[in-house]
Parts: sequence; structure tokens; C-alpha cells
Amino acid sequence: MIRDDTVEGFLDSVASRTPTPGGGSVAAIAAATGAALVAMVARLTMGREGFEAVEPRMAEIEERADAERAVLLELADRDAEAFEAVMEAFALPKRSDDEKAARSMAIQAAFVGAADVPMEVARRAVELLGLALETVSTGNPDAASDGASGAAMLHAAVLCATSNVDINAASLKDAQAASALRTSAEDLRGRADELIDRARDAFRERTS
Amino acid sequence: MIRDDTVEGFLDSVASRTPTPGGGSVAAIAAATGAALVAMVARLTMGREGFEAVEPRMAEIEERADAERAVLLELADRDAEAFEAVMEAFALPKRSDDEKAARSMAIQAAFVGAADVPMEVARRAVELLGLALETVSTGNPDAASDGASGAAMLHAAVLCATSNVDINAASLKDAQAASALRTSAEDLRGRADELIDRARDAFRERTS
Repeated sequence: MIRDDTVEGFLDSVASRTPTPGGGSVAAIAAATGAALVAMVARLTMGREGFEAVEPRMAEIEERADAERAVLLELADRDAEAFEAVMEAFALPKRSDDEKAARSMAIQAAFVGAADVPMEVARRAVELLGLALETVSTGNPDAASDGASGAAMLHAAVLCATSNVDINAASLKDAQAASALRTSAEDLRGRADELIDRARDAFRERTS
Repeated sequence: MIRDDTVEGFLDSVASRTPTPGGGSVAAIAAATGAALVAMVARLTMGREGFEAVEPRMAEIEERADAERAVLLELADRDAEAFEAVMEAFALPKRSDDEKAARSMAIQAAFVGAADVPMEVARRAVELLGLALETVSTGNPDAASDGASGAAMLHAAVLCATSNVDINAASLKDAQAASALRTSAEDLRGRADELIDRARDAFRERTS
């Protein structure tokens, strides 16, 4: 499991000459890191004088971000597994026409599966990015840079995840399915771009 | 050392109700992750048929990205240490006027130190972002999503690091020093924004 690797060991396996873990697993870890920063700001806001009004909301954000972090750490491994399924499908025999057809179908199904995990990561990261914006705007201003950093990690997670959706979509023969994936990815990127701009503005306002 | 923590353990300490590790350490880890992805694409390009012309350059990029990754992993710890020095300065005695003056000077010096590490992380991340763009444009297109993910992580690293520069600059009484830090941070962010846009365009071109 990636979560049990050391930070250095995980980065060694990313850097190595094997296709997994790669950008897909990094997307999930980046989103989990963003979730950790969001939870940190919520914790540094709760119980602080002057922030009584936002305390119940910060408690909700803390709980939600902690739960998402656990799910995202699992998705980091699921991404690598989904990509390994693609490579296993490519390794299927292709001596007869039947075998070729079965192999081709297996490859296509594996690519659909490989696009699924990053799509889920991107969706979760966009939701968390909204919470990061909220912590920057209404949380403890001493931790505004942590909230802004959380927003940046979540935006990067969406970019990493949707790049992985797009590259898997590009391998699909079903043009309609490929186009639907690309459209969803583009929509999530658009939402993430808008939210990171708002988080950057909110950070500037809180520290100027 | 953060690099010896497990991925889960590191994220637990980020999420916890203590100011370190926070966005500053995350900036360095995000940059190290970007460097790992850049090195991965270089490795998946070298020795591949059709990419002989870029092989010497990919070897350079691999070596540079690996060296940067090691430095950035160290900077993750140095960031937390620099922030702890700020908290230690705040804890100095302030009974007499002499003590108050000494404490104030120590706090100011510690804030300068705390801005120093993220500034170095941001500078290194911007340089690496240029290499990430290069791997997306000229590297193995099968790994284009990894190069694009590397670019996204390095862009996030610049945003995280410069937010930390800005928040430390906001605590400086020396207005000229604060303004110089903010200007450098803004310049690095501008370069990073331009490079991530180019990397996103290059990725679209390579996968369409």
C-alpha cells in the first residue's frame, strides 16, 4: 500500500522506469494532502477566540476532510491497480482471431476502468477545493497560507487526475464514451480553475 | 525526517492541530513529487525507438531532476525547522525593555529565515517546471500525462511556497524587506502560471 511506503520510497517508485505508480497515484496523494491541509486549518480555527460563529462549520469541514483523506489514500493504490490491468490485457494471447477479439475487448474494458479512478479523484478534489476556499476565507488567518496551499494541492490533483482521464480516453475505440469522458474532465478542470482563482484572491485579501 | 515518515504518517502530522508541518513542507514535497514525475518521463523516453535525438537531453533532465528531488526532500524538514524557530523566538522572555527589544529582533530574524526556505523551494520548482514542459513536449507521448502531472505538482509547489513567503513577509516590520520578498514571490508565481499554461497546451496537442 502506498500509504505505508515512506515518502522517499514512494517518490523513488514514481521516478523509476515503470509506468506505475505515476501521475494517477500522484493525483490521489495530492488530493489527500490537500484534504490534510484543509483539516489542519479547520483544527487551528476551532476553539479560537473570535471564531465561535464558524466553529460548527469548521467541525463539519474537519470531519469531511479527514474522511476524504482516507478514501483518497485508497484510491492511490486503486489507480496503480487499474493501470496494471491495462498492461495485463495487452499481455493476453493473440494467436487466433478469437483471441485477438477477446484481447481487444479486454484492453478496451481495462482502459475504461483506468479512466474511472482518476475521474473519481478529480470529482472528490473539486469538492474539497470548495472547502479549501472556505477555510481561506473564513478560517484562522494565521493559517491562511495552509488553506491556500491546500487549494493549490487540490487544483493540482484535478489537473493530474484529468490528464490521466484524457490519456485513457484517447485509447478508447468507442468515440462516444471517449468524448463523454473528455467532456466530464474538461468540466471538472473548468470548475477547479475557477475555484483556485477565487482561493488565490481570498488569500491575498486575508494577508494584505 | 519527513522523507522517512510513511505517506500516511506525514499526512497525519500535516492534518494535526500543530502549525508544522504545514503548507511550507507540503510545498517542498510537492516539488519533489514533480521532480520524480519529470525523471520518470525522461526514463520512459530514453532507449525508446524514435526518440534517439532527444536521448542526451533526457539523460540530462533525469540527472537534474533526481538531484533536485534529494535537495527538496531536505528542504521539507528545513521549512518546519525555520517555522519552529519563529515559535521559539515568540517564547523568549519579555520582562524588561531590553528583553522585549531582543525578543522582537529575534522574531523578525526568524520570520526572515522562515521566508527563505519557501523562496528557495519556489525558485527550484519554477526551474523544474520548465523541464516538465520539455518532457511533455518532446518526451514519450505514452507518458505525457505523467509529464503534465509533474507540471501540475510543480505549479502547486510554487503556489504553496509563495503563499508561505507572503505570510511571513506580512509579519516583517522592515517594509522594504517585506516588499522585496512579495515582489520576488509574485514574479515566481507569474513565471509558474505561464509555464503551466504552456504545459497544459502541450499536453492537449500531444494527446489530441
